[in-house]
Amino acid sequence: MSVQTASFADWLAAARPEVEVALAAALQRRSAAAAPPALREAMQRALLAGGKRLRPALSLLACEASGGVRGRALAGALAAEMIHAYSLVHDDLPCMDDDQLRRGLPTLHVIYGEALAVLAGDALQALAFETLAAQEDARLAREQAALLSAAAGAAGMVGGQVLDLQAEGARCRAGDVEAIHARKTAALLCAALQMGAAAAGVDPKPWEAFGGALGRLFQATDDLLDATASREQLGKNPRRDQALEKATLVAALGLDGTRRRAAELAEEAHKALLELPLRRHRQVLRDVPAFLLQRAP
Amino acid sequence: MSVQTASFADWLAAARPEVEVALAAALQRRSAAAAPPALREAMQRALLAGGKRLRPALSLLACEASGGVRGRALAGALAAEMIHAYSLVHDDLPCMDDDQLRRGLPTLHVIYGEALAVLAGDALQALAFETLAAQEDARLAREQAALLSAAAGAAGMVGGQVLDLQAEGARCRAGDVEAIHARKTAALLCAALQMGAAAAGVDPKPWEAFGGALGRLFQATDDLLDATASREQLGKNPRRDQALEKATLVAALGLDGTRRRAAELAEEAHKALLELPLRRHRQVLRDVPAFLLQRAP
Repeated sequence: MSVQTASFADWLAAARPEVEVALAAALQRRSAAAAPPALREAMQRALLAGGKRLRPALSLLACEASGGVRGRALAGALAAEMIHAYSLVHDDLPCMDDDQLRRGLPTLHVIYGEALAVLAGDALQALAFETLAAQEDARLAREQAALLSAAAGAAGMVGGQVLDLQAEGARCRAGDVEAIHARKTAALLCAALQMGAAAAGVDPKPWEAFGGALGRLFQATDDLLDATASREQLGKNPRRDQALEKATLVAALGLDGTRRRAAELAEEAHKALLELPLRRHRQVLRDVPAFLLQRAP
Repeated sequence: MSVQTASFADWLAAARPEVEVALAAALQRRSAAAAPPALREAMQRALLAGGKRLRPALSLLACEASGGVRGRALAGALAAEMIHAYSLVHDDLPCMDDDQLRRGLPTLHVIYGEALAVLAGDALQALAFETLAAQEDARLAREQAALLSAAAGAAGMVGGQVLDLQAEGARCRAGDVEAIHARKTAALLCAALQMGAAAAGVDPKPWEAFGGALGRLFQATDDLLDATASREQLGKNPRRDQALEKATLVAALGLDGTRRRAAELAEEAHKALLELPLRRHRQVLRDVPAFLLQRAP
């Protein structure tokens, strides 16, 4: 990868194969390698069948931008993606969002049944923490595990999913919706950045504002996509938010209002970026909000 | 607790309140404290409404027996119990064993619905690793996270649960059943002991044989209890194994054959104990197999 590139799309395209090779390798190692074949197959499908690899790419970017060596950020990058993958499997379950299609393919419980889908998700969460614990640097392993567990757990992603389910059918104001987005989506995305900064040996705390804005921006564009894109574009069934009466920004603000809000969140991310002590890649990081905005024009 | 006591029942009775106070405190801390109220309530119920606290008591015992200070083993002890609690919640789900009753109370999904039960389990797993990562000693945190994640994941507990579900309705030989038990039950029980040994600063590896025998013994008595005890004695609905055509030792060997096998496993545990470099509590540890055997006379 050229150091000169200023496009986050290029960064993502370059990071993706590297991340996917490492994810596949992680599934060959100790725990996953000794899994019953059906379980390993379900885990592989959840982890390797598509995905933008946004979180790992951001993790590697935050590490290099903070002056760190890319290789030190890899375990954290993979762990973030494992948590993301497990959360999609559980979110798609019949008792949750009951989705049949994901990334253009049947969801895990459609293929393997609900029990194996629950268990594959459980095993992916354990694998995320196993991946962090396998690092040589014990201090880094502990710091990243603290960041990831807090972001993935009751105060973060899982808590956000609970609020998201509770808000179904309720009229929500934009502020309430974004409070859900902050947990459901932004917490893990932020932890991915922060694990990368930690891998560079710098304080991850200053990355919170940028990660929080970026995460809410990502979810705003996700709400727009669900409301406007086709099944082919999405790789999953569209208009599910409306069907489930989800509390989305589109429901709260309308399409144009959500687009304006997304632009504001991009601005918030740019401002947060100015506060970060970056050593490299400022232009690539500046391009991330624009990259997310153009997902849902 | 007196150092002189040789009864594991006494050890367990003394450890239980200490563990329960610490579990309740863990739910007041960072992540769990910031959980949406319904999620926190579900997590509390899963973690605090009963339970023998066998795994944490063994963790503390292995630490002291290895010459360590009890307090250093507490985080690992709590983390083992959190993983155990989450596994019960997910095992009870309609798509798994579909149990309505646990410890004399309705199961979590009966009270809160399936979605919140899945999510409370997910959050408890994250809390286990957060609890480990909150320790001051980074090397210990990493070592315990490696032990716990391997035991809880695809090669251990979750893998065993997959095999257990796959074996439903199949005729299994005792060896196959015990291979399931080794993953489903023994892996986590063994990790609890090993995390305790690690907290004492000794090599946890030698505890594997004792933990493995103990875990299979525990599950053998569990199979016996399901086949012989009343609903009141069990706190859950009995004869579920038979109804679900589970691969149990009782199905493979009959009641008397399972009792004989349990006695053999107790003997295996005793022999494994002789190989351990213990500093204290040899008599208490020697009493654990007898304690487990008398669960199902």
